[in-house]
Amino acid sequence: MESLEALRQSVDEVDQSIIKLFAKRFSITDQVGRYKAQHGLPPKDTTREYEQLEHIRSLAAEHGVEPEVAGAYLRAMLDAVVARHEALQSDDN
Amino acid sequence: MESLEALRQSVDEVDQSIIKLFAKRFSITDQVGRYKAQHGLPPKDTTREYEQLEHIRSLAAEHGVEPEVAGAYLRAMLDAVVARHEALQSDDN
Repeated sequence: MESLEALRQSVDEVDQSIIKLFAKRFSITDQVGRYKAQHGLPPKDTTREYEQLEHIRSLAAEHGVEPEVAGAYLRAMLDAVVARHEALQSDDN
Repeated sequence: MESLEALRQSVDEVDQSIIKLFAKRFSITDQVGRYKAQHGLPPKDTTREYEQLEHIRSLAAEHGVEPEVAGAYLRAMLDAVVARHEALQSDDN
């Protein structure tokens, strides 16, 4: 069995990869925000959010991940994305 | 500029990769849980949790990610990990 220290090092490396994926995701949603600002679409799309939350919970269950973890991640992410989209729309006005 | 549909498809693909990393992270923390159960260590380590939360917020800031998103993710993750560790210790008793 690996030492506790080695296992924790692996966990920290995974967290680093996760943060990089968060950044990648924001780089795409920033493009979505610019698209919405240019096309006069609202920053928040409740239907899309609902579908995303349902989808990620189902993905989580498939991979043996607690749906609460996936839901908490995505809820915080969606709120931050909407705040960025709102800021982009203000920039355009 | 890419279509909204194409951008959303990319977002969904990133979310799928994120869930896979959550699963990978749990596979490592399950090993941590078994190590703790075998060595009589408590399921929750508040000092380690504090360090992890500080570390991920700083990583998030480096990558232009809102620290609230990183914090919400990790808080939910740590709670789920402790629940798994507690279950592993109960199995051993």
